[in-house]
Amino acid sequence: MFSWSPPPPGPLDKLFQYIDAHQDEFVQVLKEWVAVESVSGQPVPRFRQELARMAAMAADQLQRLGAGVDVVDLGSQQLPDGQSLPLPPIILAELGNDPKKPTVCLYGHLDVQPALRGDGWLTDPFTLAEVDGKLYGRGTTDNKGPVLAWINAVSAFRALDQDLPVNVKFILEGMEEAGSVGLEELVRKEKDRFFSSVDYIVISDNLWISRRRPALTYGTRGNSYFTVEVKCRDQDFHSGTFGGILHEPMADLVALLGSLVDSSGHILIPGIYDQVAPITAEEIQKYKSIDLDLEEYRNSSQVEKFLFDTKEEILMHLWRYPSLSIHGIEGAFDEPGAKTVIPGCVTGKFSIRLVPHMNVSVVEKQVKQHLEAVFSKRNSSNQMAVSLVMGLQPWVAKTNDSQYLAAKRAIRTVFGVEPDMIQDGSTIPIAVTFQDIIDKSVMMLPLGAVDDGEHAQNEKINRWNYIEGSKLFAAFFLEVARLHASDARNLP
Amino acid sequence: MFSWSPPPPGPLDKLFQYIDAHQDEFVQVLKEWVAVESVSGQPVPRFRQELARMAAMAADQLQRLGAGVDVVDLGSQQLPDGQSLPLPPIILAELGNDPKKPTVCLYGHLDVQPALRGDGWLTDPFTLAEVDGKLYGRGTTDNKGPVLAWINAVSAFRALDQDLPVNVKFILEGMEEAGSVGLEELVRKEKDRFFSSVDYIVISDNLWISRRRPALTYGTRGNSYFTVEVKCRDQDFHSGTFGGILHEPMADLVALLGSLVDSSGHILIPGIYDQVAPITAEEIQKYKSIDLDLEEYRNSSQVEKFLFDTKEEILMHLWRYPSLSIHGIEGAFDEPGAKTVIPGCVTGKFSIRLVPHMNVSVVEKQVKQHLEAVFSKRNSSNQMAVSLVMGLQPWVAKTNDSQYLAAKRAIRTVFGVEPDMIQDGSTIPIAVTFQDIIDKSVMMLPLGAVDDGEHAQNEKINRWNYIEGSKLFAAFFLEVARLHASDARNLP
Repeated sequence: MFSWSPPPPGPLDKLFQYIDAHQDEFVQVLKEWVAVESVSGQPVPRFRQELARMAAMAADQLQRLGAGVDVVDLGSQQLPDGQSLPLPPIILAELGNDPKKPTVCLYGHLDVQPALRGDGWLTDPFTLAEVDGKLYGRGTTDNKGPVLAWINAVSAFRALDQDLPVNVKFILEGMEEAGSVGLEELVRKEKDRFFSSVDYIVISDNLWISRRRPALTYGTRGNSYFTVEVKCRDQDFHSGTFGGILHEPMADLVALLGSLVDSSGHILIPGIYDQVAPITAEEIQKYKSIDLDLEEYRNSSQVEKFLFDTKEEILMHLWRYPSLSIHGIEGAFDEPGAKTVIPGCVTGKFSIRLVPHMNVSVVEKQVKQHLEAVFSKRNSSNQMAVSLVMGLQPWVAKTNDSQYLAAKRAIRTVFGVEPDMIQDGSTIPIAVTFQDIIDKSVMMLPLGAVDDGEHAQNEKINRWNYIEGSKLFAAFFLEVARLHASDARNLP
Repeated sequence: MFSWSPPPPGPLDKLFQYIDAHQDEFVQVLKEWVAVESVSGQPVPRFRQELARMAAMAADQLQRLGAGVDVVDLGSQQLPDGQSLPLPPIILAELGNDPKKPTVCLYGHLDVQPALRGDGWLTDPFTLAEVDGKLYGRGTTDNKGPVLAWINAVSAFRALDQDLPVNVKFILEGMEEAGSVGLEELVRKEKDRFFSSVDYIVISDNLWISRRRPALTYGTRGNSYFTVEVKCRDQDFHSGTFGGILHEPMADLVALLGSLVDSSGHILIPGIYDQVAPITAEEIQKYKSIDLDLEEYRNSSQVEKFLFDTKEEILMHLWRYPSLSIHGIEGAFDEPGAKTVIPGCVTGKFSIRLVPHMNVSVVEKQVKQHLEAVFSKRNSSNQMAVSLVMGLQPWVAKTNDSQYLAAKRAIRTVFGVEPDMIQDGSTIPIAVTFQDIIDKSVMMLPLGAVDDGEHAQNEKINRWNYIEGSKLFAAFFLEVARLHASDARNLP
C-alpha cells in the first residue's frame, strides 16, 4: 500500500465513508458469489446449473437496488459431440432513465475459469479466504469482484439517498470464459432498444500492470484457439504389445505442436507476421513513457527470466505482437503415476493471440496449411483434423473522449496518481462487439492488481483494490456526468 | 472358434466335464473379482483399500481349496511427494508338499490398470458384462481371469476328489502395474523357504499372438519409464497476460518429447541401439516360421497401417528391438473445452521397451544426456528434471525343458494344435526376478487372445479362453508331473 491524499469534502466524502464502513458486508457478498462454481469452459450440466444460480443471485442483487432487470434466456447450446446444454442467461439491468443524464453501461461476466483444489490451490477455490488483506478464490478478480464493486458504488448512492448522477445499465453474461456464446447476437438484437440510450460502455475485466498503480486500458489482443486431433483408433494401446510398430498419435502430435513456435517465442507458421501493423516512432515513444518496474513485475510474476530484457520489448510482445501458447493435450495420460499406454486418439490445444491488423480467418488458413504440410511430411497413417474453436478480433479505442478523461480524474481523486495508459495482452471480445455494433466509446477500467493470478491457481483480489475500486467507480459516475454536461454545452 | 479333437478318456475327461458344467460359477467369481477397483498405478488411499480387499478375497478363495495361505504385509510406500501409503500384501499359498511330486509355482497379480467409464468404455469397467461370449471388464484378461483359471483347475481336482499330480504354490501380488514394489525383496527373502522346493515357475500374464491359436512365451522386453519435468513456476499463467514473453514450459516439453523418436519409430537418442543384440540367421528363420496372419492381426488391432509391412519386421520390432512411446503430459490442460492457460509446470511421460542385451542404467544415462543436450540448446530459463521412475530388464528363457514340453502337450490335448512359440513385447519383470533369484525354469503360458485389449478401454477375456484355459491348466498339471517323473528316471 502507498499513501494518497485524503478524499475531498462534498458528496464523495460521504460515499467514501459509507463504502469504508460497509466493507465487510461487501466482502461477505463476494464470498457468496465465489461459492457458486459458475464454470463455463467445461460443458457439463452441473456447472450450467451453477451458472443459472449465479445469474439469479446477481439479478436479485440488482433488483434490491431498484434496478429494472431483464433475465434473457439464450436457449441451448449444441456441443460438437451432439449433446445439448442450456446456456446461462444474460442479465440486462437498468437504473434510471433521465434523458438529461448520460447513460453508462457496465459490462461484466459471472462465469469463471475451471479450478480444482488438486491443481495447486492452497485453499478451496470456491471458498473465499482472506489472508493478509488478500481475498483468495476463483472469480475474485475475474470478474465477480469488479462486477460487485460497480454494484457497491451504486448501493452507496442508494443507501445515502444521493441522486445517481448517471443512468446506469448493466449487461452481465455467463459465457465469457468460453467465447461469450450468444452475447453478440443479443447485443445486435438490443442495439436499438437497451443500447439505444447508452453513451459509454465500461468494462472492468482486466488487470493493472502494477501492484499499486491503477491503469486505463485502450486495447486488447484477439485470440484464435485451435485444436489438432491425431487419431489412430478410438481405443488406447498397451505400449508393450504395440510399441514399435505403430505410427503413435502422440509422436505425431508432439511433432505438430513442436512445429508451431521456436524457443525464442517466434511463431513458425509461414506468413503469420505479414498482417501485423508496422511499428511507428510515436508508438515506440508511448511504450517508453509507461512506468513499468521490470524487477517488480518479474518478482510479482515469479518468473526468473522473460524472453526479453527491456520494458519496451516486453510490453510490445504482450500488446502489439501475436503470441502462441500450447495449452495441453486431451486424451493422453495426464494423471500422476506411470501408465504404460499408447493413447489411441489425442487432441492438442493451442491458441494465437491476435493484434492489429491480424484477421482470424487468414490466421485459420495459415495454421491449417502449416499443420497439414508438417503432418504430410511424416507419412503417418493416422488421421489429423485441425479446428478453429474460438476466433476473436483484437480491439483498440480512442483515448481522448469524456469517459477516459473522467476515469483519469476519478483515479487521481481516489488514488492520488496518474493511471498507466495500457493495452492488455488478453482478449475481451465484448470490446470489439460493442465498438462494432453499438458504435459508442468503450473503455476498460480495471481494478485488479498485476499479481491477482486470474485463470491461475490461488486467484485473488486485494481487499484494498476491491474497496478503493468501489470508491473509484462512485467517483467515476460523478466525473463522467460533469464532463458529459460540459461536452454538451460546448456543442455548436 | 475352430474345431479340435474331443478330449481323451481318463482323468482328464472328468476334469473337463466338471469345468464345462461349472463354467457359470467360474464366470460369477470373475465378476466378483472385477468389481474390486484394485488399481495400483494411481497412488491414492481408496485404491489401496480396494487392493487390500482384493488380496483378502483371493486368500479366502485359496483357503477354501485347502491351501495354506500366508498374507505377507509389505508395510508402506513413501511417495516422491512425501506421502506414505500402505502397500497391498503379497499372497503366498501352498497346496500339497509331497516330495515325490514336482512343485509348480504360479505367479499372478491382482492389481489392474486405471479405467474410467469416460475414457471410452462401452460398459462400466468394474462391472463384468458378457456380450457375444466376451467377458468385458478391467482385469478380465490382465490378470484376474488367468489367475482364476489356475484356481478353477485346482478346484476341479478338489471337487472330483482326484489327487493333484503336482504340489501347487501361488504367489499373487498387487503392485504389478506399478513396478512390483516390494516383490523382489520378498522373493529374495523367501528364496530358501517358500521357493526352496519349487521346480517350475509359470506366469499367465500375457496374450496369444492370435485370436484362436494358443501360444507359449519364452521372452519379454524390459522397460524403462521416464518423466521429464519442465518448470517455470508452480502456478499456471493466463495466456493473454503472459503469452509472448515467457519461455513457456509446454513449448520446451514438446520440443524435448519431439526429439525422442522419428516418424518411422526410430529412436533418436544417441547410442541407444548400440547395445541391442545383433540378429542371427537362425533368429530370422524362427521369425519366418511363426504363423501370424498379418491381415487378421491388423483387423483385430483396428490399425489401418503398421510402420512395417512384413510379418518378420513387425515381430522383430515388437520383440527384439526397443521401442519408445510417449504416454502423456501431467500438469497441462487435459480436459474437454478451451482453457487459455499457460501451464506453469508440466511433466512429460515416456518409456523405452528394452531388449537383450540392453541395460537399464546405460539407457538412463543416454536418455538424460540426450534431453540435457536438447534442453541446453533452447536457452530456456525454465528448470528441467529427468527421472527414471521404473527400470526393468528384458527376459529370455530356454524352451527345451520339461515344463515347456508339458505345456505343448497340454495345448495339443485341449486345443488340438501346436502353440505359437513367441516372445512378448511387454514387460513382465517378475520373470527376470524369478530367473535371477530362484534360478529355476520360468515359463509363460498365456490364455488371453490378441484382441483382449489389456491396458486399454473395453478390456475383455473370451468365455471360451477362460474356460478352455482352466482345462489347459488342469491338463498341464498332469503332463508336467509325467515328464518330471521320466526326467527323474533318466537322471544318471
